[in-house]
Amino acid sequence: MSLKHKNLLSLAPLSVEDIQLILETADSFKEVSGREIKKVPALRGRTVVNLFFEPSTRTRTSFELAAKRLSADVINFSPSSSSVVKGETLLDTARNIEAMQADIIVLRHSSAGAAETLARGVKSSVINAGDGWHEHPTQALLDLYTIRERGMAFKGLRVAIVGDVAHSRVARSNILALTKLGAEVRVVGPPTMIPLGIEKMGVRVFHHLDDGLRDVQVIMMLRLQLERQGRALFPTIREYARLYGLTSERVKMADPKAIVMHPGPINRGVEIAPEVADSLSSVILDQVANGVAVRMGVLYLMSGAN
Amino acid sequence: MSLKHKNLLSLAPLSVEDIQLILETADSFKEVSGREIKKVPALRGRTVVNLFFEPSTRTRTSFELAAKRLSADVINFSPSSSSVVKGETLLDTARNIEAMQADIIVLRHSSAGAAETLARGVKSSVINAGDGWHEHPTQALLDLYTIRERGMAFKGLRVAIVGDVAHSRVARSNILALTKLGAEVRVVGPPTMIPLGIEKMGVRVFHHLDDGLRDVQVIMMLRLQLERQGRALFPTIREYARLYGLTSERVKMADPKAIVMHPGPINRGVEIAPEVADSLSSVILDQVANGVAVRMGVLYLMSGAN
Amino acid sequence: MSLKHKNLLSLAPLSVEDIQLILETADSFKEVSGREIKKVPALRGRTVVNLFFEPSTRTRTSFELAAKRLSADVINFSPSSSSVVKGETLLDTARNIEAMQADIIVLRHSSAGAAETLARGVKSSVINAGDGWHEHPTQALLDLYTIRERGMAFKGLRVAIVGDVAHSRVARSNILALTKLGAEVRVVGPPTMIPLGIEKMGVRVFHHLDDGLRDVQVIMMLRLQLERQGRALFPTIREYARLYGLTSERVKMADPKAIVMHPGPINRGVEIAPEVADSLSSVILDQVANGVAVRMGVLYLMSGAN
Repeated sequence: MSLKHKNLLSLAPLSVEDIQLILETADSFKEVSGREIKKVPALRGRTVVNLFFEPSTRTRTSFELAAKRLSADVINFSPSSSSVVKGETLLDTARNIEAMQADIIVLRHSSAGAAETLARGVKSSVINAGDGWHEHPTQALLDLYTIRERGMAFKGLRVAIVGDVAHSRVARSNILALTKLGAEVRVVGPPTMIPLGIEKMGVRVFHHLDDGLRDVQVIMMLRLQLERQGRALFPTIREYARLYGLTSERVKMADPKAIVMHPGPINRGVEIAPEVADSLSSVILDQVANGVAVRMGVLYLMSGAN
Repeated sequence: MSLKHKNLLSLAPLSVEDIQLILETADSFKEVSGREIKKVPALRGRTVVNLFFEPSTRTRTSFELAAKRLSADVINFSPSSSSVVKGETLLDTARNIEAMQADIIVLRHSSAGAAETLARGVKSSVINAGDGWHEHPTQALLDLYTIRERGMAFKGLRVAIVGDVAHSRVARSNILALTKLGAEVRVVGPPTMIPLGIEKMGVRVFHHLDDGLRDVQVIMMLRLQLERQGRALFPTIREYARLYGLTSERVKMADPKAIVMHPGPINRGVEIAPEVADSLSSVILDQVANGVAVRMGVLYLMSGAN
Repeated sequence: MSLKHKNLLSLAPLSVEDIQLILETADSFKEVSGREIKKVPALRGRTVVNLFFEPSTRTRTSFELAAKRLSADVINFSPSSSSVVKGETLLDTARNIEAMQADIIVLRHSSAGAAETLARGVKSSVINAGDGWHEHPTQALLDLYTIRERGMAFKGLRVAIVGDVAHSRVARSNILALTKLGAEVRVVGPPTMIPLGIEKMGVRVFHHLDDGLRDVQVIMMLRLQLERQGRALFPTIREYARLYGLTSERVKMADPKAIVMHPGPINRGVEIAPEVADSLSSVILDQVANGVAVRMGVLYLMSGAN
């Protein structure tokens, strides 16, 4: 069986079977990861280009490791060391990368829709590694993988996504994927951080954290973008932490077996208390570890090597 | 047969046979590029260091890909993340790189002659990837490769190089190579952009674009360095575009089968109209693709692996 | 025989036998370095992460080359292109890197003790590549290797370390290692640059260069941190060069077979005269070359692959 999509731009067009296939492919690579020799020759001779217009340790490194463990050649291209300073358009940059025979371009960009623009312009496969406030599909896929790894079924699963949902590509991709798989998704945050009409995406809205967390099995905390504080989405960081920060007290509102997730990097003491981040219910580092396996799966399926 | 030069600093010392050898070696690697596994083990265990003191997507990535497809190890070294901030001289930096057993150093530097200074100081092979306004030999070689790929003979070939010839290392390397191969080279631009006495290099000077393009078989557009506009080489960008920008109307002055080249990155609507850049006569992306094959050829021949 | 340490944070806990083992392991890799194919498959499938919070050509490149020649995958992570700008703590960054299955983390950081903090927080092996004014163990090991390569015995060896000893992690690591091996170590510099009570480390203090150099067999010059000049450790650079700069005249005070060392990058004409840096007694570039072999040895022993 193979993925019928050339690109991974959004989770919207993926079927439940597509998602299933990606998770199962990741399974086989997760096993590889645990072995002494963590490499497979699947993508030997292929080229993956990480085209990152925004800084990101985690995602860039995760894709780089995933590609290297598949034995692909990886080129990192970030704007500061590039012709972007010379005013070249995104598409011209990408066409040049394609002309050099990049098989897969992994794009991180500050504009929503950049990945789609790129995919329309090049023949290489494009993976969206985050485009503005739009989507971050591999993050949602690794979140799904992590939930599934804990033995939870998606059908009827109660999930609370907490924080600045309006400006979160992680939230958007997760809502699309989780609702598609039959989960009951809640979004929790102050009115300034919940988009109007989000109920149409099939989610329930909560403004009080305690209400939102009640009986959920998965708590997905979003990172507070501290640099956005000036935009008056909330009065102060302290106020935000008091109302929406996840403490061990609040975790008790949820199902006793609930897991705590966070896409990272975490702001300790802001959206998540240190004792929660480091608790047994936290799967934050599992998410990071699974990210490599899931991205190996996606790169492998995208490459058509299967 | 093998190249008798340890370094590639300029096209001036290369014989017609040397150039021929490089183009033919590139041929064999171009074939590899088209295959599923785009790698050959030719330079396995060798180290190529990209020593880039100026930002450049295209050239750095092209050399990195070329080296990786030859299975060499590649180290990227750019001044911002380096001891250059500590005031080390170019030569001391290079001798250190050499001591670490770099087989080939690829140098991009803002000073004319930097590559030659380096080559005199180290035993590693040095490839000039652009030094100030002096030369950019691999760019000229890939341009030759692209012309030849279109089935054109160099002898008597009519080529127009258009733009800021005075400050272009690309123009300089191409003039040296094309005249050596027997082409008839014209340079076209405003008097402020054409160096006095350039006729001694064996070229004809034109100040009107229409005249310069008449019946040429190759139109080689140079990038307008927008950041130099303040230097009063021309009144405004709009004025420059009107007088020297290549439009589809103007392409008609040239031979009906003429090809359009540009070293990139292009300024759409300045030196080249978008419809020309994207037209069938444009070989701009072929140049990029051929750049990898030509650099594979140069690295291979420089390494003495043949 | 194998190294019983998971990390290399300092030279203090290493026994003479441990040091001996590292130098001998480096021997076997030094031989590899001289061959056409400079690679061994020892660390194939392992991941080494260069986590550099301070710029450094030499050290980062040396570790990168060492790892690549062992066939490991190498990820470079430097703060400018990272989530450090988002305010993540050192430990959270490192735990994420570990979760991605980094086998070894090589850390350069401006704070003394950063490597130890890291090592306590992660299961990956940690190699200190310089932490503030504290230590730089692989630099001292490559210095030992270079001395030994010249056929000198450590027992009773007279070594002068000259310059800003107070702010030098290189000096500190070398003093620990050399005294452990039985060398007679002198430190030479103005009172502002020699820490009070350093005699407790088993060294003798000299304030006049000529006295300090008398009959020594090894002259180890430290780099003058020009950027610290404002801190009034000495009146002017010229004054420092006159009093503590190593000239060929001064080298004559030392043993006729004395070697001159410097960790680089050198300030020509400040702490070392150009004719001394380039003289036959200088082993500065040997140090650089040996750095790769010694780091291969350390990475190999740390990885547990032996």
